[in-house]
Amino acid sequence: MEIVLLGSGNIATHLGKAFKMAGQNITQVWSRNFDKALELADAVGAAPISSLTNINSKADLYIIAVNDDAIRTIAENLKIEKGTLVHTSGTSGLNILDGVTLNTGVFYPVQTFSKSKPVDLRLVPVAIEGSTTEITDFLVYAASRISEKVISMNSVQRRAVHVAAVFACNFTNHMYALAHELLKEQDLSFDLLRPLIWETALKIQTSDPINVQTGPALRDDKSTIVQHLRLLDNHPELKELYEKLSQSIINYEKINNGLA
Amino acid sequence: MEIVLLGSGNIATHLGKAFKMAGQNITQVWSRNFDKALELADAVGAAPISSLTNINSKADLYIIAVNDDAIRTIAENLKIEKGTLVHTSGTSGLNILDGVTLNTGVFYPVQTFSKSKPVDLRLVPVAIEGSTTEITDFLVYAASRISEKVISMNSVQRRAVHVAAVFACNFTNHMYALAHELLKEQDLSFDLLRPLIWETALKIQTSDPINVQTGPALRDDKSTIVQHLRLLDNHPELKELYEKLSQSIINYEKINNGLA
Repeated sequence: MEIVLLGSGNIATHLGKAFKMAGQNITQVWSRNFDKALELADAVGAAPISSLTNINSKADLYIIAVNDDAIRTIAENLKIEKGTLVHTSGTSGLNILDGVTLNTGVFYPVQTFSKSKPVDLRLVPVAIEGSTTEITDFLVYAASRISEKVISMNSVQRRAVHVAAVFACNFTNHMYALAHELLKEQDLSFDLLRPLIWETALKIQTSDPINVQTGPALRDDKSTIVQHLRLLDNHPELKELYEKLSQSIINYEKINNGLA
Repeated sequence: MEIVLLGSGNIATHLGKAFKMAGQNITQVWSRNFDKALELADAVGAAPISSLTNINSKADLYIIAVNDDAIRTIAENLKIEKGTLVHTSGTSGLNILDGVTLNTGVFYPVQTFSKSKPVDLRLVPVAIEGSTTEITDFLVYAASRISEKVISMNSVQRRAVHVAAVFACNFTNHMYALAHELLKEQDLSFDLLRPLIWETALKIQTSDPINVQTGPALRDDKSTIVQHLRLLDNHPELKELYEKLSQSIINYEKINNGLA
């Protein structure tokens, strides 16, 4: 399979390396930033490309892995004969590629990537959508080269996954950041919380979150909640978040216990 | 060392088992619920006690591991000759034990415990506070039997740890719960997010949260944020949380980049 990578960020890098390791042929890497194209092309044994007009029109798979607002412009500047064009966004619909070429799709890996940290893509779910059943099948086949957890879904479902991922990853990391802040103020190391964070994520690997919720809000322990809110008096933003999140836990429990 | 356990919940259970495994002598277990006292006493080779008046007055360490609002009443009903009396709460001060007996302290394990899931306490930080330097030393010694991460801190610091733990554990698990909810609505399995949750917690073991934040709010990617908010139109509570948390990420980045 001949693959062209358009983009050189975290997703392009991880996908490129995984396809390379799976024995696929990355022929070209384009990036707005040529130095980065050069670097990634070097890592995956491809040719670095500085202009979209020099992209080979006969590849099998074109992967656009760039910010959502750049997808359409790049797509419109490609000449594709028979290959399949995909983007990797959780939020953009399949329809953002409408009219550009016949065979289009989405290839969305549900993971958070940092450039420096290797991720085993085999365990990463990849959400696939194709413009036709045949394209879906082809993309499922292609994704199965690098992941054992390929799932086909429509754009509405994928968007829900993306919003859910924002809660489960981005907002979660922000919870860690706020905790870090509170410790720093008291000259305490974040190491105090690392085992707790680890255990919280570990539990969820084999349980549903509703079954392992703990803490003052779950117990509706008003005296502890009031004390915590008082401690946050100097942090109006954290105080508000503490209140809203505690209330959300209380409401969620009521709904799930059939009390609301 | 002779230890008396007052309480039979998750903390009492995990501490009791860890002390037992470390070769310490748990002599008595009291609980408001005698069946639970019986069960835990059986597990740690102690005598189950139904009335506080039957608690041995000559033990070395008395551990009250109950809800915060019950600590004082239990403490007042104990007769202690020379032993040290501690509670295990993150939020209650050392002073909740004032006047009950001479030697008092706090023994707060920074972890989330479920009864059914074993936790390796050796890796769990234990925050220690003693009414005197000697008591602090004794409690550090005692805690070191079961944990490699014993740290002495005052009540103000411990409260900060507890609030931080609410963010890093309880609110984090609630983020998982909300994500679970969003997937369920689209008939999608929570398995889609488990590797992402794992990776997010794994990253933080060797990085500070500020350095690994990702997502639309970090990038100030307004078009994705607006799309996500629209998707949450039917969930006013989730929509509000999405907005507040995104704004909090944006503000936090500005402060940490010296822009605010």
